[in-house]
Amino acid sequence: MAKSTARNPKGMRDYLPAEMAKRTYVFDTVRRVFERFGFEPIETPVLELRETLLGSNLGDEAEKLIYHAQHPGAKEELALRYDLTVPLARFFAQNENDLKLPFRRYHIAPVWRGERPQKGRYREFYQCDADIIGVRNAAAEAEVIHIVYTALQELGFTDFTIKLNNRKLLTGIGLYAGVPEEKLPGLYRTIDKADKIGLDGVRKLLVEEGLPAETTSRLVDLLALDGRGDISQRMAALGHLREEMDDIPVAQEGIEELATINEAVEALGISGDYLALDFTMVRGLGYYTGPIFETVITKPDNLGSVQGGGRYDELIGRFRGQSLPTTGISLGIERIIDLMDMLNLYPATVRSTVVEALVTVFSDDLQLETLKLAAELRQAGVRTEAYMDPRKNLGKQLGYADSKTIPLAVIAGPDEIKQGVVTLKRLADAHEETVPRAEIGARALALLSDS
Amino acid sequence: MAKSTARNPKGMRDYLPAEMAKRTYVFDTVRRVFERFGFEPIETPVLELRETLLGSNLGDEAEKLIYHAQHPGAKEELALRYDLTVPLARFFAQNENDLKLPFRRYHIAPVWRGERPQKGRYREFYQCDADIIGVRNAAAEAEVIHIVYTALQELGFTDFTIKLNNRKLLTGIGLYAGVPEEKLPGLYRTIDKADKIGLDGVRKLLVEEGLPAETTSRLVDLLALDGRGDISQRMAALGHLREEMDDIPVAQEGIEELATINEAVEALGISGDYLALDFTMVRGLGYYTGPIFETVITKPDNLGSVQGGGRYDELIGRFRGQSLPTTGISLGIERIIDLMDMLNLYPATVRSTVVEALVTVFSDDLQLETLKLAAELRQAGVRTEAYMDPRKNLGKQLGYADSKTIPLAVIAGPDEIKQGVVTLKRLADAHEETVPRAEIGARALALLSDS
Repeated sequence: MAKSTARNPKGMRDYLPAEMAKRTYVFDTVRRVFERFGFEPIETPVLELRETLLGSNLGDEAEKLIYHAQHPGAKEELALRYDLTVPLARFFAQNENDLKLPFRRYHIAPVWRGERPQKGRYREFYQCDADIIGVRNAAAEAEVIHIVYTALQELGFTDFTIKLNNRKLLTGIGLYAGVPEEKLPGLYRTIDKADKIGLDGVRKLLVEEGLPAETTSRLVDLLALDGRGDISQRMAALGHLREEMDDIPVAQEGIEELATINEAVEALGISGDYLALDFTMVRGLGYYTGPIFETVITKPDNLGSVQGGGRYDELIGRFRGQSLPTTGISLGIERIIDLMDMLNLYPATVRSTVVEALVTVFSDDLQLETLKLAAELRQAGVRTEAYMDPRKNLGKQLGYADSKTIPLAVIAGPDEIKQGVVTLKRLADAHEETVPRAEIGARALALLSDS
Repeated sequence: MAKSTARNPKGMRDYLPAEMAKRTYVFDTVRRVFERFGFEPIETPVLELRETLLGSNLGDEAEKLIYHAQHPGAKEELALRYDLTVPLARFFAQNENDLKLPFRRYHIAPVWRGERPQKGRYREFYQCDADIIGVRNAAAEAEVIHIVYTALQELGFTDFTIKLNNRKLLTGIGLYAGVPEEKLPGLYRTIDKADKIGLDGVRKLLVEEGLPAETTSRLVDLLALDGRGDISQRMAALGHLREEMDDIPVAQEGIEELATINEAVEALGISGDYLALDFTMVRGLGYYTGPIFETVITKPDNLGSVQGGGRYDELIGRFRGQSLPTTGISLGIERIIDLMDMLNLYPATVRSTVVEALVTVFSDDLQLETLKLAAELRQAGVRTEAYMDPRKNLGKQLGYADSKTIPLAVIAGPDEIKQGVVTLKRLADAHEETVPRAEIGARALALLSDS
């Protein structure tokens, strides 16, 4: 075989065992929370028909990032999924007869986007979504917000804010300010810049874009309303909007939904320390139709968003003809994995190797004994590696165990084998004991749990 | 949005929750066994550079099945991985500085092949591999065979045979019969047909392909050697080959390796009921260089192979310049998942839904109470769904729980709320009890564990 360079595609990563331990911990924690909330796992193919992804209102920018795929011998034009939401819509429509409504599913899986790679941004990365299909009631939003809160708490995050807004309310604010309906998408895009350029920046941009100064003022005044604080303060902000826009039905709808969500999450014990209305929050994707949410880590600040989500009542209709109310959240799981490192949130049980014991090998003759000892330890439930190079001396073998942070070494020379004993050595504190062969599993477990 | 057909790419599947429960059970069982044997998890990107996959001796037929992928704005020519072995070789060479030798890894992940879809054969399917890099000693083979044995046992399979052979021995047999070295790959291909057309069929084909009748006879006689039975019978078969080919070093090497493996797995408790030498077994892939193994389910018969594997000492060298001894196994996990259904091996704990309790909703007013009750149950560790459509009457809600096979329903009307109690109903036997609100979690868990 000709030598070939060992290189990953740009922006894509290998995960080594130590990194896998962290990722597995985060995925398992989130999965446990999702299931406790009654969400069911599903999987969909990595590849979708290209037409499934295109035209799902992902937006032009998103469509440019899609990876194309094809089998040279087949006609189907395929693409790697861009997110887990469009595949969910396709999945539900295709399998509707085998599913019950309401349908709650979660899906943790990689997606692909041809973005310019940079620190923390990859071309292959995991998403982690939980959605409820078939519930129009804003109680569904309260549930998915409660999931975000619970998952972040169980991962160990203490300082975060779940920000709420509503696309209907944004539409209402636009209409209130006199922005014509066809210009609303452009308006959203401009408002979306508020967290980067501030509301004054948004004000300037809107005027530059041709919005009259008076209209701009009315609009920015509403966007600037403070939606933080305890439940009564948040309800007061909503009350103010309700009065200002009493003749705009779409705004009223949005406000009622936000009020319901706020009452519900309050009842569930999520206080104003973790929740805020933010009327400038837009969320990029084109398919949202109602309440939208986004979670930011607040301490240290500027760590960005770790969750996005919202209601998208029309997307599934694209595949099944009739629309179905749907709401959901997506955890920014890759950023969460990185932040857990930065904030030191991984518990000590997340070790860099799965191996708990290394059985050393004394000589060629005793290789079989090594395998048998390893089998006995495994029988007892100890995760065990058998060493297989008798040419390496014991010191080298113990050095290998140490460098891999394997906690326990198991040593049996010819004398020990004859006497039916083995020596267990805990590497961290050099504690050593020689035990009867029959007790090897129990003693190993005891030494592991003591350490 | 224009209506779009909801359709999967051909030969690719969605997994619904009930199917996911089975798959998760199998993956978790196998993962636990792999880790008990000291294998570490890794992940690699779904996409590899196309040049990484091509020219890795997958074989021409395999290369034709590779899916191509590309981001329209990028120059890299990519492909979806065809197996997990070539990515492992690339991974190891690329990350060698951060890994210790020997390196044991497992990898459970999907691969893609543009085959003609048929029952049990898909274009996207999972593989499940465990490999040891850096051990030349045939003890490594004993370990990976022990893994196969343990994993199948823990999944509940009782009737299977792990078949062993050795590429060096096959080469030796070819040389012994006088087949010129450059014709050996063709010889392998013909021998590989033995399980379909029998040894007589192979004999005929070889003669048709121009091998002299006498040569063919010598060759087929060796291939026909019975390698089944207890350890002494298998050693006798190897002894016979050792004598017949005493002047062919490559054959002797292969025979010694097989002898070592047989002794080792005997010591590990794998009897002749589960193990056989099969000198006609070839394994398709071009990169094998030593011992090869394959496991078939024997009862009912004709269910085909559930595991393949072997030693491939040269593949990693393709990416790092110098070769490194490597051996491993791949479980045919999709077939295993299907066979578990056919043979009824899934335990009762594998249920079609993760949800354990449904909290019903009495009226709009009480939706918040439903959410709070659900939160209390989740706090106690009960996987709980909150119902969110008060327009559906209680019968409909219980029918929903029943159709989803949710075991427990939780009912709280206005009177119950006032009295601080709730009713728990177990749907399987209609057992009902009304309990104080504070005990809801404990009682739900008790009812669930009784059922």
